[in-house]
Amino acid sequence: MSANKLPAASGRLAHRMSDIAPFYVMELLSRAHALEAAGRSVIHLEVGEPDFATPQPIVAAGTAALQQRLPYTHALGVPALRSAISAHYRQRFGVTVDPARIVITAGASGALLLALGVLIDPGDEVLLTDPGYPCNRQFVRALEGRPVSLPVDAESHYQLSAEMVARAWSKRTAAVLLASPANPTGTIVPATMLRAIHEVVRARAGTLMVDEIYQGLVYDSEPQTALGFADDIFVINSFSKYFQMTGWRLGWLVVPPGYVREVEKLAQNLFICASTPAQYAALAAFTPETLAITEQRRAEFRARRDYLLPALRQLGFEIPLTPEGAFYLYADCARLTQDSQRFAWDVLEETGVAITPGLDFGAHETHRYVRFSYCAALPTLAEAVSRLRNFLD
Amino acid sequence: MSANKLPAASGRLAHRMSDIAPFYVMELLSRAHALEAAGRSVIHLEVGEPDFATPQPIVAAGTAALQQRLPYTHALGVPALRSAISAHYRQRFGVTVDPARIVITAGASGALLLALGVLIDPGDEVLLTDPGYPCNRQFVRALEGRPVSLPVDAESHYQLSAEMVARAWSKRTAAVLLASPANPTGTIVPATMLRAIHEVVRARAGTLMVDEIYQGLVYDSEPQTALGFADDIFVINSFSKYFQMTGWRLGWLVVPPGYVREVEKLAQNLFICASTPAQYAALAAFTPETLAITEQRRAEFRARRDYLLPALRQLGFEIPLTPEGAFYLYADCARLTQDSQRFAWDVLEETGVAITPGLDFGAHETHRYVRFSYCAALPTLAEAVSRLRNFLD
Repeated sequence: MSANKLPAASGRLAHRMSDIAPFYVMELLSRAHALEAAGRSVIHLEVGEPDFATPQPIVAAGTAALQQRLPYTHALGVPALRSAISAHYRQRFGVTVDPARIVITAGASGALLLALGVLIDPGDEVLLTDPGYPCNRQFVRALEGRPVSLPVDAESHYQLSAEMVARAWSKRTAAVLLASPANPTGTIVPATMLRAIHEVVRARAGTLMVDEIYQGLVYDSEPQTALGFADDIFVINSFSKYFQMTGWRLGWLVVPPGYVREVEKLAQNLFICASTPAQYAALAAFTPETLAITEQRRAEFRARRDYLLPALRQLGFEIPLTPEGAFYLYADCARLTQDSQRFAWDVLEETGVAITPGLDFGAHETHRYVRFSYCAALPTLAEAVSRLRNFLD
Repeated sequence: MSANKLPAASGRLAHRMSDIAPFYVMELLSRAHALEAAGRSVIHLEVGEPDFATPQPIVAAGTAALQQRLPYTHALGVPALRSAISAHYRQRFGVTVDPARIVITAGASGALLLALGVLIDPGDEVLLTDPGYPCNRQFVRALEGRPVSLPVDAESHYQLSAEMVARAWSKRTAAVLLASPANPTGTIVPATMLRAIHEVVRARAGTLMVDEIYQGLVYDSEPQTALGFADDIFVINSFSKYFQMTGWRLGWLVVPPGYVREVEKLAQNLFICASTPAQYAALAAFTPETLAITEQRRAEFRARRDYLLPALRQLGFEIPLTPEGAFYLYADCARLTQDSQRFAWDVLEETGVAITPGLDFGAHETHRYVRFSYCAALPTLAEAVSRLRNFLD
């Protein structure tokens, strides 16, 4: 079933395809699976999804939904789910968001395609962080826009600043896409900086887009939303991470009031609708019963971060700041290797610990970095640390 | 929750959005729902999805899957499902299709985006039928290609011919997208014509794409596949129609051998993967138990067509040829009205029968046509015919 044995395309190929990169980690993952098939124990710290199963109340709601007919829903989503998300913004964040502005999508992926689709013309530039979620630049490129990746380091909290946005702005800049908390670095955009960036963008008649898919997963403060101070921001969210619904493919997009009909047109044509059973399952996401489970898991993620972060530092990885959220540690391994790609392969072969090389997240110094995901139980993390210690000694 | 009360976009809007049309029938559908809410009986012959629930064995497999963790799958899909589809091609069509070439997608919508995404550059032309599935041209436009809709009539079986393709070919033509059976007309492309079109396309170094999402739903012959005579065709398929899984959002794309890695790259980035529960549910689609159900429903669809077609003709609708498949009758109402859009609204208001005006399917003579879907039981169709008779008398 591997594509590796197949020939390369000999016929017509769109030019965008030469700019769109694969997930480099997939080859490492194939090797990890091969090792497992051969009986080796592999610890998966390369994954970008929670190890927890979907909370039982959501599964129960989904199971009940399967007993009904499952036709297409409205392109913007099941009204009850849009209302439930609106109520969640009110209850959790004290923010009023008209349900009419909430669009249910096939994961955050669907939300990104819709938001960029209504905004970006060929040649339009979108400012992004490097490192960042790898698909963001590919979405921009797929729509014939130009992703402009701005290098970020620990000094800038691995996020853009208002000054960086202002400096990078060109006549062709259309939008800025931030993630808070971010993948792979786990950092959040401080509220004051977010407002400052928003001001810079607005002053230039651009559009601010904020990816909040790790919103509930912050460990040193309460979750925030960019919707708290402006309604002209496109906000991308998802049931995948905080609600542990990755495989269900369900997310949402909050759009500025004037864009609802445009997004609806595009959603009708490109998606018809998001998964019907997933939408009915997610109706149980914002109940006290489910939130008790997800908050308990949030505490578990915090405990994992608080274990793994000092442990990795002790092994020689440099992680200059404490990531506030998501479930990743973006570790500088310059003291251990000159080539993080090679390092990740060696670590896998020698220890059975799978981690993601920085290359998947951009081009800025990524040969120095690897990403550890802490989507594994504490004893498993301890075992991984022990194996790494033996390898590095 | 209606978008109608919201303001129009005042900020930046991609140029593509002025070319991308909404589903016009949605407003009629809103009115139909309003009538129902007010207590009126509405017969829904405007819908594009089966009235049958998903076959029980598929639901049972999906229900069982929900008891497991539901992580992302491989971007190309669950290997067992790709193999099951391959086996289905062998058993039902006697055609060998390497599972490696079968890509599981979020509905046929996902398949269309991937196929066009790897093929179409800005300005590239894609030849389509007018009338045709409305989203096709929007997908092409969304990717900055140029949809070229060729008028088709009953004389050409509402399909393209090799001559039409050859005549319409330009330096910028990249691909031809056919549907067999087609929406809204229900016609199939005869095998000899499909081969002739393929020859014309191949001689011009273009790409042939065939939408086979209504594949199992043919009533005067056995289902066919374009994969029977060539492996350089992109074939789009879906679990929505024949397997009655619309809301699950699951389809597949068969790609020429050289394109697997390219499609994989794009699928990873734009979708991550198709719905995990839907994929596990669909593993039960090709079992004898499920196929017994779907074949029985196919017989029911045939009975409906064979009732509704002469009944509509008797009412004054012109349907010059017998559609071989899908579940639509594309009816010329020129003897009854000069404006099929207005006619559909009048029919809804006066009789409570909802039908789709031709406008949604293109521009060629569409003011003369309406589409009847026969996704309703025979007694319901009889009631609709009776109401229409009273209205037209």
